[in-house]
Amino acid sequence: MGKVNVQEKFEMFQDHWHPRIVGDLNDNFIKLAKLKGEFVWHHHENEDEMFLIVKGELLIQFKDRDDVLIKEGEFYIVPKGVEHRPVAIEEVHVMLIEPKSTMHTGNVRDEKTKDTLERI
Amino acid sequence: MGKVNVQEKFEMFQDHWHPRIVGDLNDNFIKLAKLKGEFVWHHHENEDEMFLIVKGELLIQFKDRDDVLIKEGEFYIVPKGVEHRPVAIEEVHVMLIEPKSTMHTGNVRDEKTKDTLERI
Repeated sequence: MGKVNVQEKFEMFQDHWHPRIVGDLNDNFIKLAKLKGEFVWHHHENEDEMFLIVKGELLIQFKDRDDVLIKEGEFYIVPKGVEHRPVAIEEVHVMLIEPKSTMHTGNVRDEKTKDTLERI
Repeated sequence: MGKVNVQEKFEMFQDHWHPRIVGDLNDNFIKLAKLKGEFVWHHHENEDEMFLIVKGELLIQFKDRDDVLIKEGEFYIVPKGVEHRPVAIEEVHVMLIEPKSTMHTGNVRDEKTKDTLERI
């Protein structure tokens, strides 16, 4: 696998809430996603999930703590087991780093759930 | 743990080849480092290592494949077992994502080796 230009990869897809795999790092996938609107409330039983904002702003809502607004150049790690909902008022570009076992909708099945993710 | 502003963290240290821990992600650390000059040739027996360039350009030299020049907004994952040497002509700011077990000088002990890394 060669080097990856993050911006070039983002230009390869337009749909929202549909992560693409751009790298393998030990037991983790590096994924890119464009987000807009509200996702589903969910949690990941056994996996922390990292959101690194490449463009835009992402609100992460929680039930048991204050919401967090993360902006370009910032990241947030949602700890395992914590109920959360990403909300993007405007389109956001994010890099996600997650164990390969992670389903993006966590414990929830929803019309947004993608069972298999492409590599780009 | 709250959100992390990558630029603010980089302003907290100036020395080269001395990664700081800025996040815990499952069995991995998220680290930031400033690099300048040549590192030591090394490999990591069991761990892939991800270099995401936040500022500048990093040359990664290999013995068994073509060297790679990675620039701002690009990343490269050095697969486990692959002998490599990072070289930064000018100062480079990188985010590293590595298993917690990873020593930054890999299989080599050197004057650059740091046995314990601080969190910032």
